[in-house]
Amino acid sequence: MPAVEVSLSGLSLIGDSAVTPGSSSLHGINPATGQKLEPAFFSATEAQIEAAAELARAAFFPYSALSGRARAAFLRKAAAAIAEQGAAIVERANLETGLPLPRLQGELARTTNQLILFAEVLEEGSWVDARIDEALPDRKPLPRPDIRSMNRPLGPIAVFGASNFPLAFSVAGGDTASALAAGCPVIVKAHPAHPGTSELVGKAMQRAVQESGLPAGVFSLLFDDGIDVGVALVKHPAIKAAAFTGSQGGGNALMRIAAERPEPIPCYAEMGSTNPLFILPQAMKERGPSLAQGLQASFTLGSGQFCTKPGLVFFPSSGSPADGAFTDALQAGVKALAPQNMLTPGIADKYRTAVEERKREGSAVLLAESEAVIDGQTAARAATIFSVKLEDYTSQNTLEEEIFGPTTLLVQYGKMADLVRAAEDLHGHLTATIQGTDEDIAQASELIRVLETKVGRVLFNGYPTGVEVSHAMVHGGPYPATSDSRSTSVGTRAITRFARPVCYQDCPDGALPEELRRLNSLDIMRMVNGELTRNNKDREGSHLKD
Amino acid sequence: MPAVEVSLSGLSLIGDSAVTPGSSSLHGINPATGQKLEPAFFSATEAQIEAAAELARAAFFPYSALSGRARAAFLRKAAAAIAEQGAAIVERANLETGLPLPRLQGELARTTNQLILFAEVLEEGSWVDARIDEALPDRKPLPRPDIRSMNRPLGPIAVFGASNFPLAFSVAGGDTASALAAGCPVIVKAHPAHPGTSELVGKAMQRAVQESGLPAGVFSLLFDDGIDVGVALVKHPAIKAAAFTGSQGGGNALMRIAAERPEPIPCYAEMGSTNPLFILPQAMKERGPSLAQGLQASFTLGSGQFCTKPGLVFFPSSGSPADGAFTDALQAGVKALAPQNMLTPGIADKYRTAVEERKREGSAVLLAESEAVIDGQTAARAATIFSVKLEDYTSQNTLEEEIFGPTTLLVQYGKMADLVRAAEDLHGHLTATIQGTDEDIAQASELIRVLETKVGRVLFNGYPTGVEVSHAMVHGGPYPATSDSRSTSVGTRAITRFARPVCYQDCPDGALPEELRRLNSLDIMRMVNGELTRNNKDREGSHLKD
Repeated sequence: MPAVEVSLSGLSLIGDSAVTPGSSSLHGINPATGQKLEPAFFSATEAQIEAAAELARAAFFPYSALSGRARAAFLRKAAAAIAEQGAAIVERANLETGLPLPRLQGELARTTNQLILFAEVLEEGSWVDARIDEALPDRKPLPRPDIRSMNRPLGPIAVFGASNFPLAFSVAGGDTASALAAGCPVIVKAHPAHPGTSELVGKAMQRAVQESGLPAGVFSLLFDDGIDVGVALVKHPAIKAAAFTGSQGGGNALMRIAAERPEPIPCYAEMGSTNPLFILPQAMKERGPSLAQGLQASFTLGSGQFCTKPGLVFFPSSGSPADGAFTDALQAGVKALAPQNMLTPGIADKYRTAVEERKREGSAVLLAESEAVIDGQTAARAATIFSVKLEDYTSQNTLEEEIFGPTTLLVQYGKMADLVRAAEDLHGHLTATIQGTDEDIAQASELIRVLETKVGRVLFNGYPTGVEVSHAMVHGGPYPATSDSRSTSVGTRAITRFARPVCYQDCPDGALPEELRRLNSLDIMRMVNGELTRNNKDREGSHLKD
Repeated sequence: MPAVEVSLSGLSLIGDSAVTPGSSSLHGINPATGQKLEPAFFSATEAQIEAAAELARAAFFPYSALSGRARAAFLRKAAAAIAEQGAAIVERANLETGLPLPRLQGELARTTNQLILFAEVLEEGSWVDARIDEALPDRKPLPRPDIRSMNRPLGPIAVFGASNFPLAFSVAGGDTASALAAGCPVIVKAHPAHPGTSELVGKAMQRAVQESGLPAGVFSLLFDDGIDVGVALVKHPAIKAAAFTGSQGGGNALMRIAAERPEPIPCYAEMGSTNPLFILPQAMKERGPSLAQGLQASFTLGSGQFCTKPGLVFFPSSGSPADGAFTDALQAGVKALAPQNMLTPGIADKYRTAVEERKREGSAVLLAESEAVIDGQTAARAATIFSVKLEDYTSQNTLEEEIFGPTTLLVQYGKMADLVRAAEDLHGHLTATIQGTDEDIAQASELIRVLETKVGRVLFNGYPTGVEVSHAMVHGGPYPATSDSRSTSVGTRAITRFARPVCYQDCPDGALPEELRRLNSLDIMRMVNGELTRNNKDREGSHLKD
């Protein structure tokens, strides 16, 4: 790919205004070489945070008053503006993250598709959950008033870019797309690991705002070399919810800040997960080596830096040769792996420390480690695989914790009842996977029932990495996987995180939002007197009066 | 009404078990006379709380695995069991709360109707938000797996009975009904102001559990003379959400406990509200005296002990005679009112203290006070009405706080722009009401837009007391009115508070919940490949395979 000319300012984007550089600065780092990337980026100042928050507050009324179709047009423009800068964005992201170009091209497409998917949701329009209970003036003992309600946006949202998805969970990623779709202005705190990528995407968003004739405060982007900007943002009274993807520590801190504000706000933190995978006995017998291959591909995909990486694998020890074939294939495969570049030197160091701690601690045995020499690549690390017996796993509660990077832990179980007990002892995770034959699965109903209460997504005969962006997807799960098990950060249900129901009683038709008027001109699905319908029918079957 | 023979044990109901009395005891108090009512009720012990929590945990799997129709049958049985004991329940509630019999009979009907309404929601079945994205095995670059998701229950729920609705927001009230409907076992902490009523309703619930053949832990009821039982309950790891209606202090404390648990849980606290009411100029001119009459009826209804009592009334001061007619009518009306019995001597004392503080503080002027003598009725209090100019109101931020009881504050405004600014400065409330002619309302779009962001329900030309239990109702609002503006505690949307989406990827049809199977045998509305439908159609238009 030819070099694309890009000009980066290093400055936060506060609505459409130019800002002056703050005092402290940060640089992108090429993880392959450890070299600083130009230019310097400047942390937003307190005055800039304040300005962004005030612009967002001012933008909220006009933006939230737009029709869903107008917001959809804006999201489509944003997708086009990002796609237009796609080559430059991907090239810079590759420099800043070390992620391969094809992966980044795929992630770019996912990001623009996601904006378009939310545009489709708005164009269809039924997501607002419009409900109408018509007046019953003759009801005894009391008449019923006319009651109508629908989802309305919360207000300005603080979004935190994630390290591991510089596009799809970052400046214009799923959180931003769903908040904008709901009718909320967004202020993004850029992840410091990819500031240039963030600026490029931010400028495309800024252009889309301008070209759509929207108030500038609909979108702002703030840089920070530490945590001060993010903390100030979540504490700001104009901010009505926060969305975050990142570490347990970071997510817990934001949850606390959001809960302890004078006005507590919802905090959607996706904090990672170990994604237990359960291999059932028949499946192991029938396809041990292919399970080894699939598992290896999944836990080392993207250097193991996915929230959905399977980091905990329960496998049966029946004494049959199939068990050996599974672990033999994994050992051979992992040993032969080339060292894998990680996103940042810091993440690479944390991975090495955690792996060394697991080796030293000794309750799990190192089964294999990539043998290739790591020469001069500051952020390259060896994949590792550990093994432990179920009884030793159970006595070591740290073994359930996520190690971010290309490692997994095999847990050898004997009886199905022990496996169910281990599942009952799990804390919350994003996913759980069952590998089993039809016969295995038919006998695993208790395990499935337990796993439903532990995770947001239960997979069968697949691997959890690769999260489809669709209507039915749930990327969430009970704490500590996320802060709020009632929500998903991927898929179209994510829009509801940024909305609240508002009810209008005996409101004149003309003063109602279009979705709630007598005439269903948007042709959306509504609940009218308890019945889901796109018709204008009232309870007598005739059309609602105009 | 003839005396009904009731037998009260004073003991907590732990599933279907008999319990031994705890050490500390409480009594119901007749607020009209101040007299203790027999028998003594015993605070649940730590061991009893633990037993109730463990029973609820054990009941969760079998109860949540029931079909919606089976849960509906249980709710209908519960409604019937309560109705059967209706006379005894109402009689005891009248003794314990001083609320008049007709009001309590209405509240009993509301309570059983609410259980039946949730049964209807379950029988219809679409509330689960079932979504199906079918596999696309030939999609490039990657195939799409089969993805299905729906709402599943959170787990055991702690429900706190409210003082002011001994039936409809108490043992078998809206929180209990919606949690049970969602598939969650419930442990109720009875309000100490009506323990006998609580035991009677609790026994009816217990009978419905037994007659439905459900595990005993589906419902338990705990007494407490203080706050220890409630705190222990919300801290218990088996509890997955809490629902509360009560004071700001109590709600804030529960929010903190829920957020600071090792596993934070959702806390739905409805903490009251001042329910601002805005009289617009034309309406005042046309119907000042009738507005005075309506307002007086609303703010003194049930001795002003409704969360939705209008406690803050903005009225225009145009210098026209209509303004005087409004305040004159209110003054005369309030002066003539008989003293009103309050729910408990404690609530009556708090009301008196708050009113005296408002008189002493002096920024608002006492406009009228009921003049009738209060003789020997320990919990009877005078209705009061205060008045203040907008500029003085604005400088006194305590004037926005709720005073629980028969009092309201009139705020005299001049220009519409000042009124909008006052609305912008409001914190969260449950409701806001606009009294205006068509012409007024047409000119009030900015005010309406502001109020939408401040409350859960905007009313036009009505009064906020009287909350319809229906599909479209929203009884909620931004903090501090509630802990979670995304929810409602009244109406059928309340069920979603106790559910979370769970996703199944490539799950064999037989292992799926019935709602997500290929054949839509329940005939529910589902989102199939993005389209809302009751059909079994797949994306090619043919029927989903079996």
